[in-house]
Amino acid sequence: MMDQNSNEFSKNGEECVVVKALEDGVTVIGVTRGTENKILHTENLKKGEIWIAQFTEHISAMKIRGVATVLTKYGKVDSGK
Amino acid sequence: MMDQNSNEFSKNGEECVVVKALEDGVTVIGVTRGTENKILHTENLKKGEIWIAQFTEHISAMKIRGVATVLTKYGKVDSGK
Amino acid sequence: MMDQNSNEFSKNGEECVVVKALEDGVTVIGVTRGTENKILHTENLKKGEIWIAQFTEHISAMKIRGVATVLTKYGKVDSGK
Amino acid sequence: MMDQNSNEFSKNGEECVVVKALEDGVTVIGVTRGTENKILHTENLKKGEIWIAQFTEHISAMKIRGVATVLTKYGKVDSGK
Amino acid sequence: MMDQNSNEFSKNGEECVVVKALEDGVTVIGVTRGTENKILHTENLKKGEIWIAQFTEHISAMKIRGVATVLTKYGKVDSGK
Amino acid sequence: MMDQNSNEFSKNGEECVVVKALEDGVTVIGVTRGTENKILHTENLKKGEIWIAQFTEHISAMKIRGVATVLTKYGKVDSGK
Amino acid sequence: MMDQNSNEFSKNGEECVVVKALEDGVTVIGVTRGTENKILHTENLKKGEIWIAQFTEHISAMKIRGVATVLTKYGKVDSGK
Amino acid sequence: MMDQNSNEFSKNGEECVVVKALEDGVTVIGVTRGTENKILHTENLKKGEIWIAQFTEHISAMKIRGVATVLTKYGKVDSGK
Amino acid sequence: MMDQNSNEFSKNGEECVVVKALEDGVTVIGVTRGTENKILHTENLKKGEIWIAQFTEHISAMKIRGVATVLTKYGKVDSGK
Amino acid sequence: MMDQNSNEFSKNGEECVVVKALEDGVTVIGVTRGTENKILHTENLKKGEIWIAQFTEHISAMKIRGVATVLTKYGKVDSGK
Amino acid sequence: MMDQNSNEFSKNGEECVVVKALEDGVTVIGVTRGTENKILHTENLKKGEIWIAQFTEHISAMKIRGVATVLTKYGKVDSGK
Amino acid sequence: MMDQNSNEFSKNGEECVVVKALEDGVTVIGVTRGTENKILHTENLKKGEIWIAQFTEHISAMKIRGVATVLTKYGKVDSGK
Repeated sequence: MMDQNSNEFSKNGEECVVVKALEDGVTVIGVTRGTENKILHTENLKKGEIWIAQFTEHISAMKIRGVATVLTKYGKVDSGK
Repeated sequence: MMDQNSNEFSKNGEECVVVKALEDGVTVIGVTRGTENKILHTENLKKGEIWIAQFTEHISAMKIRGVATVLTKYGKVDSGK
Repeated sequence: MMDQNSNEFSKNGEECVVVKALEDGVTVIGVTRGTENKILHTENLKKGEIWIAQFTEHISAMKIRGVATVLTKYGKVDSGK
Repeated sequence: MMDQNSNEFSKNGEECVVVKALEDGVTVIGVTRGTENKILHTENLKKGEIWIAQFTEHISAMKIRGVATVLTKYGKVDSGK
Repeated sequence: MMDQNSNEFSKNGEECVVVKALEDGVTVIGVTRGTENKILHTENLKKGEIWIAQFTEHISAMKIRGVATVLTKYGKVDSGK
Repeated sequence: MMDQNSNEFSKNGEECVVVKALEDGVTVIGVTRGTENKILHTENLKKGEIWIAQFTEHISAMKIRGVATVLTKYGKVDSGK
Repeated sequence: MMDQNSNEFSKNGEECVVVKALEDGVTVIGVTRGTENKILHTENLKKGEIWIAQFTEHISAMKIRGVATVLTKYGKVDSGK
Repeated sequence: MMDQNSNEFSKNGEECVVVKALEDGVTVIGVTRGTENKILHTENLKKGEIWIAQFTEHISAMKIRGVATVLTKYGKVDSGK
Repeated sequence: MMDQNSNEFSKNGEECVVVKALEDGVTVIGVTRGTENKILHTENLKKGEIWIAQFTEHISAMKIRGVATVLTKYGKVDSGK
Repeated sequence: MMDQNSNEFSKNGEECVVVKALEDGVTVIGVTRGTENKILHTENLKKGEIWIAQFTEHISAMKIRGVATVLTKYGKVDSGK
Repeated sequence: MMDQNSNEFSKNGEECVVVKALEDGVTVIGVTRGTENKILHTENLKKGEIWIAQFTEHISAMKIRGVATVLTKYGKVDSGK
Repeated sequence: MMDQNSNEFSKNGEECVVVKALEDGVTVIGVTRGTENKILHTENLKKGEIWIAQFTEHISAMKIRGVATVLTKYGKVDSGK
C-alpha cells in the first residue's frame, strides 16, 4: 500500500458517505473499483450507530440496506423505507 | 490496477450518482468508457436500498431501470414513472 | 486504454448529461471527437429509464431523439416536443 | 488521436453548446480551429431533437441555422427568428 | 497544428463570443493575434443565424458589423444600432 | 512513516470528524483503508469529552457507538438515539 | 509565434475589452508591452460596430478615442463625452 | 524534521482547533497519526486560557477534557457539559 | 522580450487600470519595477479618451495627473479634484 | 533557514492569530511543531498592544494567557475571563 | 532583473495600494523587503494626483504621509487626519 | 536575496497589515521567523501616517504599540486603548 500510487488516493478521500442506522442490522457494502465490481467489505450497524466512510482507491460504490439516514454530497436520503 | 495510470482515477471519483430503489428489481447498469460501450456491471436493488456509485476509469455511463429516486449533480430525477 | 493518455480523461468526466425517457424508443447517440464526427454509440431508452453519460476521450457530442427530459449544466431542456 | 496532444483537449470539453431544434432542418455547423476556418461537420436536426456539442481540439466555432433554442454559458438565445 | 504548443490553446477556448444576426449580412471578422493584426476570417451571417466563436491561438480580436445581438462575458451588447 | 508517500497525507487531513460524547462509554472506531478493512484504533470517550479526528493515510472509515453529537462536513448527526 | 513562449499567452486572453462605437471614426489603439510602449495596431470603427479585443503577448494597453461604450472587467465606461 | 517531507506539512497547518478553557484543568491531548495512535502531547489549560493548535505531520486527532469552548471548522462545540 | 521569463508576465496582465480623462492633458505615467523606480512611459490623454493599461513585467506603479475617472480593482477614484 | 525547505513555509503564513491585550502581562506562547512540543517563544504584551503572529515552520500551537481579545479564522474569542 | 527569479514576482503584483493625495506634498515611501528594511523609493504627490503601486520583489512595505485617501484590500483608510 | 528560495516569498506577500497611527510615536515591530524570534525592524509612525506591511520571508509576527487603527484579514482592531 505504500507504493507510489498511494500518493493520490487521499484526494479520493474528500468524498465520503455518512450512514446512521435507524434499526439493527443495517449493512453498508463496499464494492470494488476496477474492471470487476465485487464486494470488498460489509459493515453491520446496530440501531443508532453512525458509519462514516470515504470512497477509496479500492471502493467506488456502496450499497446501503435497512432503515437508515444517509448523508451524501447531494443531501439526505432515507433508505429502507 | 496499481500501475501509474491509476493515479488519476481518484479525481474521477468526485462525481457520483445516488440511486434509491422505490420498488424491487431496480437495476443500475454501468457502461464502459472507451471506443466500445459495453455493459460492465449490473446492480440489482430491492425496494428501499440505496446505491451510491462513482464514475470510474472504467465506467462513463449508467442506465437506471425501474422506479427509483436518482440524485445527480444536476438535482433529483425520478426514474420509472 | 491503459496508456499514458488515459491520465487526463477523468477530468473530462466532470461534465455529464442526464436523460430521462418519457416515451419508449428515446435514443441517445454519442458522436466521436476528432477530425471526423461519426456515431460511436446509440443507446435506446424505454419510457421511464434514466441514462447518465459523461463526455469522454471518444465522445464530444450527443444527440437526443424522442420525448425526454434532458439535464445539462445549463439547466433542463425537453426534447421531442 | 492518441498522441500526447490529446491530453489537454478534455479541458476544452468543459465548454459546450446545447441546441434544441424547433423545426425540421436546423443545422449546426462546426468550424475548424487554426489558421484556416473551414467547415468540419454539419449536423442536421429534426424538430424536437437536442444536440449537445463540446468545443474540441478541432472545432472553435459553431453556426446555428434555423429555428432553435440555443443554450450557452451566457444564457439562452433563440435562433432563426 | 498538432505540435506541442497546441496543448495550451484549449484553455483559450474558455472565452467565447455569441453573435445573433438580426438582419442579413452581419459579418464577424476574426483578427490575428501577434505582432501584426490582420483579418484571418470573415463570417457572413443571415438574419436569425447564431455564430458562437472562441478566441483561439490565432484570433485575439473580433469585429462585428451589422445589426446583431452580441453576448460576451461582460453581458449583452447590440451592434449596428 | 517518513517516506516519500507521507507527502500527500496532509491533504487527507483536511477532512475531519468531531464527536462529542453525551454519555460515558462512547466509542469511535477507526477502520483501515486498503484491501482489507480492519479496526485500527478504538477511542473511548467519557460524557462531555470531545474527540476531533482526521481521516488519515491509514483510516478511511469511522464507526461511532453510543449517544453522541457528530459533526461532519454534511452537518450534525446524533448517534445512539 | 509558435515558439515555446506562446504556451502562456492564451491565459492572457482571459482579459478582454469590448468597444461599441457610437459614432463614425472611433479608434482603438493597441500599445506594445515591454520596455518601450509603441503603437502596434489602430482599429477604426464605424458607428454601431463592436470591437472585442484581448490583451495579448504584444499588447498591454489600449487607448479609445471617440464616442463609444467601453466594457471592461470593472464595468461600463463611456468614452468621448 | 528538516527533511524533504517537511515541505508538505505546512498545508496541514491550515486546519486548526481553538480551545478556551472555562475551568481549571482542561486538557487537550494530541494523538499521533500513523499505524498506531498514541498520546503525543498533553496540554493543561487554566480557566480563561486559549489554546490554538494545528493538526500536524505528527498529530491527527485531539481529545478535549473538561469544560471548554471548542471552535472547529464545523462551528462551536462545548465540552464537559 | 521573447525569453523564458516572459512566460509569466501574462498573469501579471490580469490586473489593469482604466483611466477616463475628463479634461485635456491628463497624464498616466508608468513607473518601472525593480531596484530603481524610473518613469518608463508617459501617456497624454485628451478629454473623453479612455486608457486601459495593465501592470507589466516592466511597470509596477502608475501615477495619474489631471481630472480623470480611475477604475481599479478597489473601485472608482476621481483624480485631480 | 535558507535551505530548500523554506520554500513552503510561506504558505503556512496564510494562517495567523491576532491578539489584543486588554491588561498588562498578557502572554502569547509559541509551541514547537514536531515530535516534541516545547515552548519556543513567549511574547509579553502590555495593555492595548496588538500582536499578530503567523503559524510557522517552527510553531504549530499558541497559548494565550491573560485578558485579551483573540481573532482567529473561526472568529473572535475572549481569553482570561 | 531578468533572472529566473523574476518569474514569480508578477504574482506579487496582484496586491496593490491606491493613494489619492488630498493635499500637496503627500509622500508614499517604499521600504525594502529582506533582512534590512531601507527606503527604496519616495514618491511625492500633489493634490489630486493618484498613485497606484504594487508590492514588488523589492518592496514589502509602504508608508503614507500627508492627507490622502488610501485604498487597500481591507478597504479605505484616510491618512493624515 | 536573489537565490532560488526567493521564488516563494511573493506568495507570502498576499497577507499584509495596515496600521494607521492615531497619535505620535506608534511603533510597528517586525519579529523574525525561524527558531529564534528577534526584533528585525521597528517603524515609528507619527499621527496620521499609514504603514502597510506584508509578512515576508523574514518577518512572521508584528507588534503594534500606541493608539492606532489596525486592519487585518480578520477585520479592524484598535490598539492602545
